[in-house]
Amino acid sequence: MSIQIDRTRFIDAMETQADIGGTADGGLHRLTLSDTDKEVRDWFLDAMEDAGLETRIDEMGNMFGRRSGTDPSADPVLLGSHLDSQPYGGIYDGALGVVAALEFVRTLNDEGIETSHPIEIVNWTNEEGSRFQPAMQGSGVWTGELDVETEYDKTDAEGTRFEDALERIGYKGETPAEPTTEYESSLELHIEQGPKLENNEMDVGVVTGVVGLTWGAVTFYGAAEHTGTTPMHDRQDALVAAADFITMVRRLGGTLGKETVASVGYADVSPNSINIVPEEVTVTWGIRDPSDDVVEEGRERVLEEAAAIADREGVDYEWEDRARSGSIRFPDRPVTAVRDAARALDYDSMDVFSGAVHDAAKVGSVCDTAMVFAVSVDGKSHTEDEYTSWDDCYSAANTLANAALDLAE
Amino acid sequence: MSIQIDRTRFIDAMETQADIGGTADGGLHRLTLSDTDKEVRDWFLDAMEDAGLETRIDEMGNMFGRRSGTDPSADPVLLGSHLDSQPYGGIYDGALGVVAALEFVRTLNDEGIETSHPIEIVNWTNEEGSRFQPAMQGSGVWTGELDVETEYDKTDAEGTRFEDALERIGYKGETPAEPTTEYESSLELHIEQGPKLENNEMDVGVVTGVVGLTWGAVTFYGAAEHTGTTPMHDRQDALVAAADFITMVRRLGGTLGKETVASVGYADVSPNSINIVPEEVTVTWGIRDPSDDVVEEGRERVLEEAAAIADREGVDYEWEDRARSGSIRFPDRPVTAVRDAARALDYDSMDVFSGAVHDAAKVGSVCDTAMVFAVSVDGKSHTEDEYTSWDDCYSAANTLANAALDLAE
Repeated sequence: MSIQIDRTRFIDAMETQADIGGTADGGLHRLTLSDTDKEVRDWFLDAMEDAGLETRIDEMGNMFGRRSGTDPSADPVLLGSHLDSQPYGGIYDGALGVVAALEFVRTLNDEGIETSHPIEIVNWTNEEGSRFQPAMQGSGVWTGELDVETEYDKTDAEGTRFEDALERIGYKGETPAEPTTEYESSLELHIEQGPKLENNEMDVGVVTGVVGLTWGAVTFYGAAEHTGTTPMHDRQDALVAAADFITMVRRLGGTLGKETVASVGYADVSPNSINIVPEEVTVTWGIRDPSDDVVEEGRERVLEEAAAIADREGVDYEWEDRARSGSIRFPDRPVTAVRDAARALDYDSMDVFSGAVHDAAKVGSVCDTAMVFAVSVDGKSHTEDEYTSWDDCYSAANTLANAALDLAE
Repeated sequence: MSIQIDRTRFIDAMETQADIGGTADGGLHRLTLSDTDKEVRDWFLDAMEDAGLETRIDEMGNMFGRRSGTDPSADPVLLGSHLDSQPYGGIYDGALGVVAALEFVRTLNDEGIETSHPIEIVNWTNEEGSRFQPAMQGSGVWTGELDVETEYDKTDAEGTRFEDALERIGYKGETPAEPTTEYESSLELHIEQGPKLENNEMDVGVVTGVVGLTWGAVTFYGAAEHTGTTPMHDRQDALVAAADFITMVRRLGGTLGKETVASVGYADVSPNSINIVPEEVTVTWGIRDPSDDVVEEGRERVLEEAAAIADREGVDYEWEDRARSGSIRFPDRPVTAVRDAARALDYDSMDVFSGAVHDAAKVGSVCDTAMVFAVSVDGKSHTEDEYTSWDDCYSAANTLANAALDLAE
């Protein structure tokens, strides 16, 4: 017997949050610890209190609301995501997972359903990592991967410290940013941010894991020369080397492994003049695959190729890792709860790996974790035209609710 | 019988101008119409007056100094270059040609040599084109290619109008910026800005022409997608297209024609994030060759390839021309004067085509024109480590002096 969340109230809550920092083009510009982040936090805090939850804010600004269970010794089930957005991003990324968690406890209240495990819902601070780095800063400290004092000293582009920004909006809480209890399990609902569910005409996605990734940067150092007067054989053109690198990285995608994605998203050219041979070019690499072996092979290939390219063009080069994370396979129990919930609701669902990293990837180190994916039209995300239909939002939220109820009962 | 300029006075004048806007690293930062440009102009004006020249400033700030000839009906020989520099450029680019012209008339004075033709020396305004565009602005108006009122309204990066900047430093003159007489011929001494003279162990270069060029830009329009979640086959990556383009342009250099040079000096990537597939990338092309046919074929190949690349990657594209100029072959008479002067002075010289465009390329539309090149160590230019030995500066200046004397006698 499945529960059904209140579709009207759920959409209304989605629209309410989307208005706080909403853009003229229907997107959302709600950077972490900004005035609009404070405003949406105030709304979420009120909503949690109105739902009878016991709220707490931790020292990273992570916001929790707890609904008691009937078994005093049972550990809570944790549900949530994040309310901050990318610059001129979409209204679903993160917020959908928080609003769905809120609607779940509201539905439990309406229906008078008691669970043996407590339910905690959460809004993680700074998932996006666009104002302060790194991404998943709140969940990263909470799970012990990051150090709170180090993160407090991080500054944004204007030099504002994270801690000062947190205090300014009144969300530096008292609770330590760490698990204050064991957790039974956790679930996060998020938009897919990719096209697989839509392409396969699915209602909802059962996330079985998160791909591993390697991020890094290579800088090629050539010689700045006049483009008109320097013979071709006397050149050391850092941009020609970078072009080779971009083409090589592209070739790794889809060939290194069947599901490998590989990209150069960033290139910076100096002096960047039509009339000067490029002296210094930095390009990044990003490679992801469900298999850690494939990711590691990709990183090795990138470094070998960078050396070969630099040699071929007669330029110097340096490289650095920017991020490395192993792939995650979510445990069977919460994954099965999600899959069973979708089936019980008669939704078409498929197993997918997440190509993006989420707070759930951090929380997975604390307790059994899985995710629910909502359909992303055209896979668009981090832009104002990110879109998920209310039908698909509802299907995903209903799936989350029933999976959570299964885990909490 | 050759004349010899005063080496000590010549080097002293080079050092004096190099101190005005000189940088800690031995370069020169003397942007057009800046305070240091005013200072070097004041010095040059005084020097011309001390040498007994009749000076005039035109409405573009071009500075002329005239030494009378013995034949009242004879047209003047014009000698000069420019005193402005690139940002953190070198002390030789432009200034060497102006100082050599000044030293020539000083030497004529010392030796009591009269010429039948008058001699005019000139400092052209804004040859570099780094603060106000286009380059060769002063000579471009003077030769009628550019319109003075249009150029007055050009603004720098801070929004300052050219005319206002010219008035501020007190160098908006009364004379119309146009030839007020016919000219017998003109010569410009400039550093090579390339390595050919040094590689061939020459003392001085006889410039027989200026290469033609095509400059332009192509913008590829793809789709900004999450790099982790978008399958490779669903991508339209504008940077992958740009990398193809960069590699293709490189291939044109040295293969389209024996002397063809081809480069992409500029690339701009948007949104330029390690985690987003590049949506929009602009790259430039620049192709030069002594043959206009080769240049034109290069431009056609670039446009054909841009279309093919866009098609292959499934992206849109646009292109625009930024500059096109035909190659110039300097007339025999002034070229022979330069070649003969070098030979008479027992300097090793060779004929070279200029890979860069100079004021002389403009002046060539008004009268018979040629150029003298001084050796550039490692071909370096537009940087603080631009270098020409005093020996090579002296050889080039002596060559200029004797060629000019030949033309003016």
